Amino acid sequence: MSGRLFVIGLGPGNANQVTPEASQAVAEAEFFYGYKPYVDRLDLKPHQTRIASDNREELARAKEAIVKASEGHAVAVVSGGDPGVFAMAAAVCEAIEDGPAEWRDIDLQIVPGVTAMLAVAARAGAPLGHDFCAISLSDNLKPWDLIELRLLAAAGAGFVVALYNPISKSRPWQLGRAFEALAAVLPGTTPVIFGRAAGRPDERINVAALAFARAEMADMATCVIIGSPETRVIKRDGKPALIYTPRSATGRRE
Amino acid sequence: MSGRLFVIGLGPGNANQVTPEASQAVAEAEFFYGYKPYVDRLDLKPHQTRIASDNREELARAKEAIVKASEGHAVAVVSGGDPGVFAMAAAVCEAIEDGPAEWRDIDLQIVPGVTAMLAVAARAGAPLGHDFCAISLSDNLKPWDLIELRLLAAAGAGFVVALYNPISKSRPWQLGRAFEALAAVLPGTTPVIFGRAAGRPDERINVAALAFARAEMADMATCVIIGSPETRVIKRDGKPALIYTPRSATGRRE
Repeated sequence: MSGRLFVIGLGPGNANQVTPEASQAVAEAEFFYGYKPYVDRLDLKPHQTRIASDNREELARAKEAIVKASEGHAVAVVSGGDPGVFAMAAAVCEAIEDGPAEWRDIDLQIVPGVTAMLAVAARAGAPLGHDFCAISLSDNLKPWDLIELRLLAAAGAGFVVALYNPISKSRPWQLGRAFEALAAVLPGTTPVIFGRAAGRPDERINVAALAFARAEMADMATCVIIGSPETRVIKRDGKPALIYTPRSATGRRE
Repeated sequence: MSGRLFVIGLGPGNANQVTPEASQAVAEAEFFYGYKPYVDRLDLKPHQTRIASDNREELARAKEAIVKASEGHAVAVVSGGDPGVFAMAAAVCEAIEDGPAEWRDIDLQIVPGVTAMLAVAARAGAPLGHDFCAISLSDNLKPWDLIELRLLAAAGAGFVVALYNPISKSRPWQLGRAFEALAAVLPGTTPVIFGRAAGRPDERINVAALAFARAEMADMATCVIIGSPETRVIKRDGKPALIYTPRSATGRRE
């Protein structure tokens, strides 16, 4: 087993937010596995090969990449953002655990990246400035009841909540239901940030109060950040408001 | 008000994990404010000036930097990791909200970075592969009871928990107390990752089962990641174990 397997985070989409470490790993690999929009971002040389696949095929993609690496190749699995946050690193680990024993010997290097919530937060101010959590809203791999339980536990305890995979064609109602559930435990004035393509030319950052937040404000490439009762909004003339969560917290509700 | 204020995330410490966007912002600024170990990392030109300060002086530092920018300079406030995660972006927003009205006109650019938990997770496997939260264990700016409530709410709902600021000379007992509290709601076999200086030459990643986790395994530069009941450990011959949290979750306890 002489191959290498990189699992690379390409950041939120702006080439200036790809770390030099990720760029070096891309330069070293020969075969690139990933969800099509991510492998399409790569600027490859003639000897490098893209193997794009659909999303929801993470485990099959991970296995295919490991097999290729086990044949002695330098292989990369690429994710947008950070590969460890609702992305390919867990799928690769899962494949290794379930696969033949020799897969455990593979030379595996996971390269972190700027995950979407950090890029969105940076454009909005500092909404993640205090305790926060990240929840995938996809109920493809976990029951909806568990998602709702986690939303309520987190918001009820004062965490800011970042939602990944908020909505898709096959999951149209979940985000609206999440807003309804959260409205029962959070003030209607709580700011909700809809961040899409942060740092890219087509960036779109919108803010709505929770009482007016609607699922249609998001698409599958949006990261949604819901403030805590302590999150604040600073209005600015001629500029978007700054949203931030103070470093200090009392835990008291206003 | 013609100055500019950058709030820059320098990543976990490895120069290869600083984004090109952050490097460009560093190249553009003239004055650099930050906690000494972070400004010491910068490779500056003769016309660029460091103004280092102690930690726990975030608000004073933020105000000083804004004043300098309001005098027409290009000013940078630097943080390790990501500036929006328990770092300077929230302090800068707080200063702007409390300061004179003209501070709201400042040209503010927040540059995200790879935050510590992502770098530590990448070295350990994919412990943040499913829902997770980040909690600052410092009770300088929030009451300990609130921290304990959040720990229990998060672990009880199945989140993986990343702890920032786990311990310091002035806060010696909090991490041990956190482990005790978590041991009441999590299996003793739950993996706890102690990640220090991830990606740097002096990197140290240790793993202990929660029942054997001790506060002495961390220092103030450590990020501690506590698994959920679903987090798995893959043993490997001659290599550190891979720790990951599967993409799917049932919410059932074993």
